Amino acid sequence: MRPMFENWLFPYLEKRSGHKLYSRVLRIFGRGEADVEYCLKDLMESSNPSLAPYAKRGEVTLRLTAFCKDEAEGEALLAPLIRQIETRIGKEFIYSENDRMLHEVCAQMLLEKKMSLAVAESCTGGMLTSRFVDLPGCSAFLKEACVTYSNEAKMQRLGVREETLREFGAVSAQTAAEMAEGIRRTSGASLGLATTGIAGPDGGTPEKPVGLVYIAAADAKGTSVKELRLWGDRENVRNLACLNACDLLRKKLFSDCIESGLSDFASAKL
Amino acid sequence: MRPMFENWLFPYLEKRSGHKLYSRVLRIFGRGEADVEYCLKDLMESSNPSLAPYAKRGEVTLRLTAFCKDEAEGEALLAPLIRQIETRIGKEFIYSENDRMLHEVCAQMLLEKKMSLAVAESCTGGMLTSRFVDLPGCSAFLKEACVTYSNEAKMQRLGVREETLREFGAVSAQTAAEMAEGIRRTSGASLGLATTGIAGPDGGTPEKPVGLVYIAAADAKGTSVKELRLWGDRENVRNLACLNACDLLRKKLFSDCIESGLSDFASAKL
Repeated sequence: MRPMFENWLFPYLEKRSGHKLYSRVLRIFGRGEADVEYCLKDLMESSNPSLAPYAKRGEVTLRLTAFCKDEAEGEALLAPLIRQIETRIGKEFIYSENDRMLHEVCAQMLLEKKMSLAVAESCTGGMLTSRFVDLPGCSAFLKEACVTYSNEAKMQRLGVREETLREFGAVSAQTAAEMAEGIRRTSGASLGLATTGIAGPDGGTPEKPVGLVYIAAADAKGTSVKELRLWGDRENVRNLACLNACDLLRKKLFSDCIESGLSDFASAKL
Repeated sequence: MRPMFENWLFPYLEKRSGHKLYSRVLRIFGRGEADVEYCLKDLMESSNPSLAPYAKRGEVTLRLTAFCKDEAEGEALLAPLIRQIETRIGKEFIYSENDRMLHEVCAQMLLEKKMSLAVAESCTGGMLTSRFVDLPGCSAFLKEACVTYSNEAKMQRLGVREETLREFGAVSAQTAAEMAEGIRRTSGASLGLATTGIAGPDGGTPEKPVGLVYIAAADAKGTSVKELRLWGDRENVRNLACLNACDLLRKKLFSDCIESGLSDFASAKL
């Protein structure tokens, strides 16, 4: 049915009506669904172009649709709406205007900047790397990854210092930073990305509860670390940790853009 | 609705009828759905116990259901059917009689045998390790993993020899074996598991087409390697490579059981 509809019926109906539907999907990370809806309430009442929010786990997507004669008219109808959304939500939270996933956006930025990535995972355990490897041609930017679940592996593979583990623990900002710096140094990649945390259901303590995750991104200029307090089951904690790690990487790549004179966020938006 | 049905309506109906449904799910790997159905055709005509096949990607599951007074009667009705299925399909292909997944069965065997695992992935790129990390408490058996996508990483992290890569290529039985042995040696785990292959859509040649994957499992006694010719898109090739790698690991753990006197496959079946 789907090919019949897409290849025959839909074009036929479009032609008969003399109009078409032109859509763009904006993807947002770092702001909640209710928050986004509240900001855009009045814009959602418009019928052409129309604006509809969808919530995914950890993300919000907005579908913008224009009823128009052709793509040019559609784009002209959507452009001012996109600018309004950017102003209200904050440009830095909108990572794609083309329905790309976070790791896809990172991959394309890495390719464009001819940079390479290496990953060190603890709690996410291969899930983060696997998303990048989902993308065909990932060998052009992905150097390698280590899943260093044990303290020994963190020390041996990544050079995390024993004192760091003893003093701050495996789940700490310091360990996350040393993991990101370690995988970057030992792999020779331009960027190192790391995760360490307590995915649950066991292993939590009052000081370090289930859902506490540290993510870090290291490049030649320095290391950014972020503490996360995540919720839900083991799979959800791991999934949200992966999304947040990609977002940290995206921001690191963006700040490079800004420093190198590309002051417009949109220029690196895919 | 689900808690209402499960906790109230279903027990109520069971009690009223004076009967219950008792089910077991057998999971099969290494034999196709049509093949399994052909072997069990006549058994599927029975109504009590009933037998229904379901196909999943790369696997076949069989649901056996008995209409009975209690669990003991249910088990008595299902036991001879399970034995018939084992004889016809081959015990070694049935990896669970309790609806466990392949990686879960491997994990439980590793825990029971107090063995540890380390993983070296190329084409599967973290997907295989991530399945083990899906299981809470995986740190009890999983030492670490390396996603060695590049040749340099294979040499540096795992000690794969340059001559091996030059002579046979990164996608070869020899490289898979050296990866499994290398991750086992460098991690200190009792078992090393490795994958290397061409997941596609690009990168294939007439000699080494997309879907060619080698998997290897190494322990103290030696290394088993298997060549796979997989089909479908990138995700499917990677998924089937993971399932096959888990099955190779399971067989290696089984053969240990047999050598150590546990001659019955079922004793290690979960």
